[in-house]
Amino acid sequence: MKIDLNSDLGESFGPWTMGDDATMLTIVTSANIACGGHASDPETMFKTLSLATERGVMIGAHPGYNDREGFGRRVIPMAPEEIGRMVAAQIGALMGVATLVPTKVSYVKPHGALANLAAADKDVAKAIAEAIHTLDPDLTVLAISGTEFESAAKTQGLETYSEIFADRGYLSNGQLVPRSHPQAMLHDAVEAAERLISMLETGKMPVIDGDPITLDAHSICVHGDGPVAVAMAREIRSRLEQAGITVTPFARQ
Amino acid sequence: MKIDLNSDLGESFGPWTMGDDATMLTIVTSANIACGGHASDPETMFKTLSLATERGVMIGAHPGYNDREGFGRRVIPMAPEEIGRMVAAQIGALMGVATLVPTKVSYVKPHGALANLAAADKDVAKAIAEAIHTLDPDLTVLAISGTEFESAAKTQGLETYSEIFADRGYLSNGQLVPRSHPQAMLHDAVEAAERLISMLETGKMPVIDGDPITLDAHSICVHGDGPVAVAMAREIRSRLEQAGITVTPFARQ
Amino acid sequence: MKIDLNSDLGESFGPWTMGDDATMLTIVTSANIACGGHASDPETMFKTLSLATERGVMIGAHPGYNDREGFGRRVIPMAPEEIGRMVAAQIGALMGVATLVPTKVSYVKPHGALANLAAADKDVAKAIAEAIHTLDPDLTVLAISGTEFESAAKTQGLETYSEIFADRGYLSNGQLVPRSHPQAMLHDAVEAAERLISMLETGKMPVIDGDPITLDAHSICVHGDGPVAVAMAREIRSRLEQAGITVTPFARQ
Amino acid sequence: MKIDLNSDLGESFGPWTMGDDATMLTIVTSANIACGGHASDPETMFKTLSLATERGVMIGAHPGYNDREGFGRRVIPMAPEEIGRMVAAQIGALMGVATLVPTKVSYVKPHGALANLAAADKDVAKAIAEAIHTLDPDLTVLAISGTEFESAAKTQGLETYSEIFADRGYLSNGQLVPRSHPQAMLHDAVEAAERLISMLETGKMPVIDGDPITLDAHSICVHGDGPVAVAMAREIRSRLEQAGITVTPFARQ
Repeated sequence: MKIDLNSDLGESFGPWTMGDDATMLTIVTSANIACGGHASDPETMFKTLSLATERGVMIGAHPGYNDREGFGRRVIPMAPEEIGRMVAAQIGALMGVATLVPTKVSYVKPHGALANLAAADKDVAKAIAEAIHTLDPDLTVLAISGTEFESAAKTQGLETYSEIFADRGYLSNGQLVPRSHPQAMLHDAVEAAERLISMLETGKMPVIDGDPITLDAHSICVHGDGPVAVAMAREIRSRLEQAGITVTPFARQ
Repeated sequence: MKIDLNSDLGESFGPWTMGDDATMLTIVTSANIACGGHASDPETMFKTLSLATERGVMIGAHPGYNDREGFGRRVIPMAPEEIGRMVAAQIGALMGVATLVPTKVSYVKPHGALANLAAADKDVAKAIAEAIHTLDPDLTVLAISGTEFESAAKTQGLETYSEIFADRGYLSNGQLVPRSHPQAMLHDAVEAAERLISMLETGKMPVIDGDPITLDAHSICVHGDGPVAVAMAREIRSRLEQAGITVTPFARQ
Repeated sequence: MKIDLNSDLGESFGPWTMGDDATMLTIVTSANIACGGHASDPETMFKTLSLATERGVMIGAHPGYNDREGFGRRVIPMAPEEIGRMVAAQIGALMGVATLVPTKVSYVKPHGALANLAAADKDVAKAIAEAIHTLDPDLTVLAISGTEFESAAKTQGLETYSEIFADRGYLSNGQLVPRSHPQAMLHDAVEAAERLISMLETGKMPVIDGDPITLDAHSICVHGDGPVAVAMAREIRSRLEQAGITVTPFARQ
Repeated sequence: MKIDLNSDLGESFGPWTMGDDATMLTIVTSANIACGGHASDPETMFKTLSLATERGVMIGAHPGYNDREGFGRRVIPMAPEEIGRMVAAQIGALMGVATLVPTKVSYVKPHGALANLAAADKDVAKAIAEAIHTLDPDLTVLAISGTEFESAAKTQGLETYSEIFADRGYLSNGQLVPRSHPQAMLHDAVEAAERLISMLETGKMPVIDGDPITLDAHSICVHGDGPVAVAMAREIRSRLEQAGITVTPFARQ
């Protein structure tokens, strides 16, 4: 049994640090690296790409709205074609810096409000998927099962992998428990790890409103913002390995 | 006899227009296109790349300091390695958008204060030349003869072409007449065209302080900022062609 | 009979020029000056404030979303309190630069998407009106009759003036003809001027779907983007004056 | 005996946090608050101004180059008049947000590369001092004794106070020990506190190359970047108070 761990990294900017990338890069096997839109700059890209490469972590581009003040968490009204061009410029920038390491961008996972919109909006999903395919048809995509973005990526012929969340509750319809609900988040690392192991062993994810459901999972998304998140990520990796599950990049499974 | 005409284009930003790119792209054969540093954004890149491609104009990346307020005309203190990474990110961004047109970035010519520094500073010249070569060894370089940047590009093994200026006076040492001098600029389009034709026919550039000097020239830099500049560029092209000189991209001569 | 003419000015940025401010400042009597959010920078503010003051034009702050790429025409999701703080920072910046001229900011008129939202959203309207009143209760407000923003400004006790548009058709319910309708815009300067004169003489604005309606008007908004707009503004001023109407700042009528 | 403690605060930006402002605001008596140039945004300004006001900490504007990526530590080539306008816009922005708290900006202390330039360059010093005086002649200035900026502020008639550094070695000529020298920095909180107490009791600052020198000191600059810096600041305050020295804002001494 194999699984990937992915996390959003390289989200520092100029003098400001976000997260403990050095530690997270000893835990995850795939790094979603910001591209200068919602976060990052050429120096941050270079440092993150270098460290990920040293650690053997697979590299993904993590494009987001060009809105540092809002950290890419606000929807900026843009036409789908504008989004496609913005995404192409951002992934291109990361690819440019990657040649200096040297290393390679392997996959794409959109960030924040852009990811949410791409999950729900067919035209935005298509614009992003087309931009990725046009840039390099060998890029793979990390998406959530059942979203418009997953579907658009597959339509483009992109190799598409699906991710689940280590710390989010699931509903029997396959959706995440809304954040307003008390069971939206799992706060206990051991409990989160046990749920993931059960899911990987049985192919079925426990849900809060019925019987476990079948869910595709090539990668588990973990967070690195703050010591508690890092500790949970470490605990999850450790327990997965103790359960005999190999933690390895999704595209190399 | 063949010569290229190049100009800085794609320097609009958001709602602000700079220059008359549509007209200039009927005059020049090479376009130095801003990459989102000193000017431009993904939409402007896409539009300029598309129009240049439609018109058969060769495309160059025109990276500059990430300083829109100063339009890349101010030296921002940065280490050479930082400059290399900034340049790689900018060229990468333009390359990314170019795939959507689809078209190809063929050469690099740095902008403004970055170009001036690269001409004089060995370490900066080397950092930029290395970044270009690492990104894509098939990229060519447009430089001024005798500069550190030309030398660094050649050392990297990059195909290097040299440009002269349509509207600047030259000294017998090959340098430009300083801007403070009354003969620094040529304001008359006919006079500028005659000087260029003479230079191309004889291989020697007239100077203000002695006999004409031998000067390498694959391309002539013309300006497009304002109706007077556009008219001069058009007049120069027209007179070059009347003199039997073919105006064509430098790398295809 | 007296009326004010207002226009959005000072919307250049760094090397990029927008509009012909020097000419417009010989036509209008009130200048809505950008504050570094959707456009402008300290140099542009200083130059515009200086020129307006020289010409005796009344000065207004024209705050907008902090989104230069979108020129403040996109709604950026923000809480009303965040909007209030953004507006306070922008007006404060313009007031700071104004002291150097020296001159005074007399009124506030929000820009673009922020103005549209403030017209329709009670909470946003209140947040902006409160920020203006807290900054300086002597600031006046230029608003559209019947909007939430006008109502919020009055509730705050701010002196509030209403504007009409020189080039937009009106409906019998007092609203503007939607832009999709063929009669949305008036393109003829003479026709626009005649309509305004009739409105000022009779107190009633001609509408496209019924009898003229009563409309409050202390100021007429004219545009300065492009030679056609400038010519229309000039024609309107000239015809208003020929009709014996004094063109003078709204707060001094 | 009385002394002020000042620190650079409010230097977060969007999603990125810098320093532990909440703790530092229980230690210092004056807060140099970033104004949206090298750091900050309207939300960060509002939060920092509010917390400082709650804690009774005096508020200063901390303007810097408009260069977030370089955090105001790089000299951006600008004419002195441009610097004056930039500083006026930044202080104005902070003043605007301060009215919403409500609170008042009492003093100005420039940041980073701008402060260094103002200390050495007469024209820059004069431009900043004039901008401050024009904005509000009641603003006071926090400067280093013997600098061009202190002199320009006094020439303008601004009330000027001088600061010393808790953790920097001094030379017998009154200058700081260069950072390349092993004794440039004091790393031990107790030693730093003892030196400050001795300085305040005797009026003489120990130096590394001779007898203690007379030094004016209304305020001590302490750092808040990282747990070690915060701990040192706390230790210094505690030892000053144990030695019977009252820690209180400089302008209220």
